[in-house]
Amino acid sequence: MARVVVDVMLKPEILDPQGRAVQGALGRLGVTGVADVRQGKQFVIEIDGEVTPELREQLHAIAGELLCNPVIEDFVLIVDEAQ
Amino acid sequence: MARVVVDVMLKPEILDPQGRAVQGALGRLGVTGVADVRQGKQFVIEIDGEVTPELREQLHAIAGELLCNPVIEDFVLIVDEAQ
Repeated sequence: MARVVVDVMLKPEILDPQGRAVQGALGRLGVTGVADVRQGKQFVIEIDGEVTPELREQLHAIAGELLCNPVIEDFVLIVDEAQ
Repeated sequence: MARVVVDVMLKPEILDPQGRAVQGALGRLGVTGVADVRQGKQFVIEIDGEVTPELREQLHAIAGELLCNPVIEDFVLIVDEAQ
């Protein structure tokens, strides 16, 4: 078993109202020193067997189209073989 | 600057229709060997200065109430000082 994690986050130049709301709430709850909060999505994909370079490439291509909106979002794909 | 990342994920026993939809789409796109997909949320909190143990504890308590629904979701809090 291996695990592939895809983190999808709004691009830095795109306004993130959810993150801004969390930042405001943290301030009201007395947390100081918060410079910024961004909210994103995380997909955890469990793979039977190992993640071959071909599978990784296939997942990378799909992540860039299916799991994120490349116009406004960036993503990172992390392979964790140690399952 | 430090970065605190809070990953929020549905508990394993809670049905995840979004993850299931992604799993189905991966299958239709020809990706084989996908055992499971779960979709969660990720909050990236940028902190001015360092994350003291008190701040970490404060953020941990708030994450468990504000950022996740503890009835159906689990969360992990990761501190990344290396910014």
